[in-house]
Amino acid sequence: MDDKSLNTARLIALDWGTSSLRAWLLGDEGEVIDAHAAKRGIMQVEDGDFAGVYREIVGDWIAVHGELPALACGMIGSRGGWAEAEYVDCPAELSVLADRLLTIDADPVSLRVVPGVMQPSGPGVRPDVMRGEETQVLGALSAAPELAERGVLVLPGTHCKWVHIAEHRLAAFATYMTGELFAVLQHHSILGKPAADRDGVTDDKAFELGVDTAREAGAAGLSSILFSARSRMLAGEIAAEATPDYLSGLLIGDELRSALTGVDEVPPLRLIGDDALCRRYRHALARFGIEDVAEIPDAARIGLWRIAEAAGLLTY
Amino acid sequence: MDDKSLNTARLIALDWGTSSLRAWLLGDEGEVIDAHAAKRGIMQVEDGDFAGVYREIVGDWIAVHGELPALACGMIGSRGGWAEAEYVDCPAELSVLADRLLTIDADPVSLRVVPGVMQPSGPGVRPDVMRGEETQVLGALSAAPELAERGVLVLPGTHCKWVHIAEHRLAAFATYMTGELFAVLQHHSILGKPAADRDGVTDDKAFELGVDTAREAGAAGLSSILFSARSRMLAGEIAAEATPDYLSGLLIGDELRSALTGVDEVPPLRLIGDDALCRRYRHALARFGIEDVAEIPDAARIGLWRIAEAAGLLTY
Repeated sequence: MDDKSLNTARLIALDWGTSSLRAWLLGDEGEVIDAHAAKRGIMQVEDGDFAGVYREIVGDWIAVHGELPALACGMIGSRGGWAEAEYVDCPAELSVLADRLLTIDADPVSLRVVPGVMQPSGPGVRPDVMRGEETQVLGALSAAPELAERGVLVLPGTHCKWVHIAEHRLAAFATYMTGELFAVLQHHSILGKPAADRDGVTDDKAFELGVDTAREAGAAGLSSILFSARSRMLAGEIAAEATPDYLSGLLIGDELRSALTGVDEVPPLRLIGDDALCRRYRHALARFGIEDVAEIPDAARIGLWRIAEAAGLLTY
Repeated sequence: MDDKSLNTARLIALDWGTSSLRAWLLGDEGEVIDAHAAKRGIMQVEDGDFAGVYREIVGDWIAVHGELPALACGMIGSRGGWAEAEYVDCPAELSVLADRLLTIDADPVSLRVVPGVMQPSGPGVRPDVMRGEETQVLGALSAAPELAERGVLVLPGTHCKWVHIAEHRLAAFATYMTGELFAVLQHHSILGKPAADRDGVTDDKAFELGVDTAREAGAAGLSSILFSARSRMLAGEIAAEATPDYLSGLLIGDELRSALTGVDEVPPLRLIGDDALCRRYRHALARFGIEDVAEIPDAARIGLWRIAEAAGLLTY
């Protein structure tokens, strides 16, 4: 590290989820001075030793830069994480997040945790929850303020979130288990057998056939099309090694169909997440006539910085 | 065995599926003289030794009763089974099944295998396949001939089939992976965690809430409701140990919703399958206003007898 970095460290920011942990040392303007990424999500932390993992990740930074505020978002604040942060009710003013941080008394510095967001049950509304995505949404709106009046943010992953923004608030959201469904079907069901050992073959045509099958099935929905990943293979319509791509297309396609059901005019839509996965969603969205969907990068890091700022953690 | 049984054995009938094998020694009128049931489905047969399992199951019967015809239906005739029997194309005259038996040259007596049925792709039609259910359908129509003009047979299980009968033919069918989806989600996804070690608790109210949630979600479909098995638990709306019943309700409920989409008047409907599972389907069907749905027992055995009869295997 050079001298500048020694002078300007302001915040340790952590995106601590189910299967991974990303940590950044941020400078005066929120710029990245140093970063760690580790497979130390809450499911990989042995015997609940979150304190040990935390010390290991931030210890050197504190040793070099002295005491610094630390702020985390994600599943670390869930019932299965280090300590349970509250949920803010939806519709939610995102500015509220900074007022409701949980503080964990930790070594070498205490850790603040961003609350999650809960959508309560109502007539025709199922409850839903998020932890971590609220911070990404706040970061994304700071990077793309044109969406703050009306927009949709889609966050593909294990549990994909569709987040509706209206009048600068997180108005509503829905969770699709698309990523997890793909993983369990590919690894544990008969649909995964034909290509159990494939190593990342990607067949765009099979993916597209999956998306189109889901689109054309319409209201009959996922239940009615899932088995076609086997029957099309038996009928010779897709190659055995392409079944994972076809299955991925079915699942993402049905997610889009479901999320767009009853929507007459799609609001401005942006993606947040892993590049390869966002590419698949863009491809699928195009089959639904939705083009030019940009990705918003670094949403979690920017969100953590903004929340720290609003909470007065960045003392100068 | 008494003397009568020694005189009247006419057929060895086998329902040989993915996870189980049932075998019957049948008498003059198709009555059961003796029966075996074993966990020797094609997935449990080691090193593909179908011949060994077959000899073990039928050997004693042949030793006592002398040479007899043997007829099997199910996945034993699939690519992953003993030998691949053909598919009859759908719409199918069920009488064709008896004309297209595969013969496997086996010891101590050769084994005939019933063909499967394939629904070919067409505009807006996905291919689909069945093996074993065609025999159950034939047996069911022999037991309930009032459905032969127009009816629906629902066969719950790992891969649930909805079979439409019209003018004495198998007109169309669809596969729902409801049973397998339940198993992989319960054993391998986050939805199964809260009750991973439950031993058969059954919560009818949680099941019913699942069915109703699927019914009310309408066209938004399964993708949009699956995560509610977690969020309702986190929100305190269902107990952790009731999540499997709720999940079962979601999956069966969405299957019914999907299968009934666009159906103005439901034709006479009957169930074929495991008693406990048929009870769940009856409960769910009642939530959709479909009452008094009877089960047809012994459909596979009756179907095998009828096919053997039509194929001239029951020589007197």
